[in-house]
Amino acid sequence: MGRVTVRRPVLRITESSHRTRPDALAAEEPLEVRVNGKPLSVTMRTPGHDVELAHGFLLTEGVIGEPDELATARYCDSPGPDGRNTYNVLDVALAPGVPMPDASVERNFYTTSSCGVCGKAALDSVKLRTHHSPATDPVSVGSTTLIGLPDALRAAQRVFDSTGGLHAAGLFDSDGELLVVREDVGRHNAVDKALGWALMQRRVPLAGCVLMVSGRASFELVQKAAMAGVPVLAAVSAPSSLAVDLAEEQGMTLVGFLRGSSMNVYTGAERISIAGTG
Amino acid sequence: MGRVTVRRPVLRITESSHRTRPDALAAEEPLEVRVNGKPLSVTMRTPGHDVELAHGFLLTEGVIGEPDELATARYCDSPGPDGRNTYNVLDVALAPGVPMPDASVERNFYTTSSCGVCGKAALDSVKLRTHHSPATDPVSVGSTTLIGLPDALRAAQRVFDSTGGLHAAGLFDSDGELLVVREDVGRHNAVDKALGWALMQRRVPLAGCVLMVSGRASFELVQKAAMAGVPVLAAVSAPSSLAVDLAEEQGMTLVGFLRGSSMNVYTGAERISIAGTG
Repeated sequence: MGRVTVRRPVLRITESSHRTRPDALAAEEPLEVRVNGKPLSVTMRTPGHDVELAHGFLLTEGVIGEPDELATARYCDSPGPDGRNTYNVLDVALAPGVPMPDASVERNFYTTSSCGVCGKAALDSVKLRTHHSPATDPVSVGSTTLIGLPDALRAAQRVFDSTGGLHAAGLFDSDGELLVVREDVGRHNAVDKALGWALMQRRVPLAGCVLMVSGRASFELVQKAAMAGVPVLAAVSAPSSLAVDLAEEQGMTLVGFLRGSSMNVYTGAERISIAGTG
Repeated sequence: MGRVTVRRPVLRITESSHRTRPDALAAEEPLEVRVNGKPLSVTMRTPGHDVELAHGFLLTEGVIGEPDELATARYCDSPGPDGRNTYNVLDVALAPGVPMPDASVERNFYTTSSCGVCGKAALDSVKLRTHHSPATDPVSVGSTTLIGLPDALRAAQRVFDSTGGLHAAGLFDSDGELLVVREDVGRHNAVDKALGWALMQRRVPLAGCVLMVSGRASFELVQKAAMAGVPVLAAVSAPSSLAVDLAEEQGMTLVGFLRGSSMNVYTGAERISIAGTG
């Protein structure tokens, strides 16, 4: 589709000069996901890898747990103002016997527990939904391996280099080998695309793997990693309080501020082997 | 409520050492907003300024356009696991005659146009909903004033300093004087809190003002600024393609990569007076 970047003129102002020049922007378009013909969600995303995005979204929302539970995924015929297909509506058919998700999936997410709307309810709902808990994953990852991941992720980001405007999510094995990287204007979409790729490759649960994200670690990113059975989540920036609570509850290793040659380990430190301490 | 930060132990690993020490994390908790007793949305936010957040959210979703259209806002009695109120459910009563929002407000947002789900539909829906277009705002802002904003925003971020983990949104006048800054784990929430403050202060439409955000400029952030009549939106990082399209359609000035002593002006350059060119 070739819509990952869009060129626009921009007025560049510096201390000594100002001039108009062309600039590349990260593309952003709405994507509607329909399940068995019924609209489920609309997300603003960077076009591309949409089938992976739908797989990852349905996995991390607990609608499917195995790739065969999704029968088909195809773009609807959704013409834009110019009469051409926008490729912005994806219709997914679930396999026979897979229950339709509740349309208000997001709202129900935090209110399944007896305590009403609170952090504990959010933690409990992940426990109820996950098909692939990472708690018993015995993987060990070296601290020097982790230190190498941000540069490896950045090197694999094709679009960021031209736009400076995309979040990235990368899956690595425990030796730091890159399995896949996906980019998107939305942090959640980048993670869903990477996890959807893994589901389609029959690699979920992602035992022994590290998910590295370019930004912060929020509750929702930890939730997505937990739903795919990821034992180690590493972020360049800070985690939130509820992200740490959920990682602990799920038995996941959560690393933050992974930059330069240092990091903070918030939970699951037993999976990190520290250089020099063998 | 004192829940803006949460202390947790963290294992800090550097090249030469590793030790456990306490660390401050940005708090994240779900907030359910009810309108006239009916659940409308759940967002993961940093507790605090929740009434402003609700005002801003309802303003930027087009539910209200004036502060008097919201009659009351109060926390529900929503006990957590310890029996104490979680302060995570806010019930808002609209003034008599203000129509109830559609519960599927988000989904309808992109499908109001004849062209289905596409960028043009998203642009059109903002045009239909806004009460306060910035298009005719004649404000002029100096490029040197803009260059000072990132430092001013950062200096006003109390919580970021302790956690490194929060997005910020600041409103400034055209001389660069800070009106308000709000922080949150969610970029949208930080903007909604700042705009909600302005609505409650009867400063909406925000004629002559600059909204500065700590991250990127997405479609949804431009939409929020447009709904509050903000003529100039400035971001530290990159805008997306649809953010630029919407800013142009709304007659808004959009500045990106505002850092150091330079910036990119994507739309509305006529509002920027460049130093040295009078």
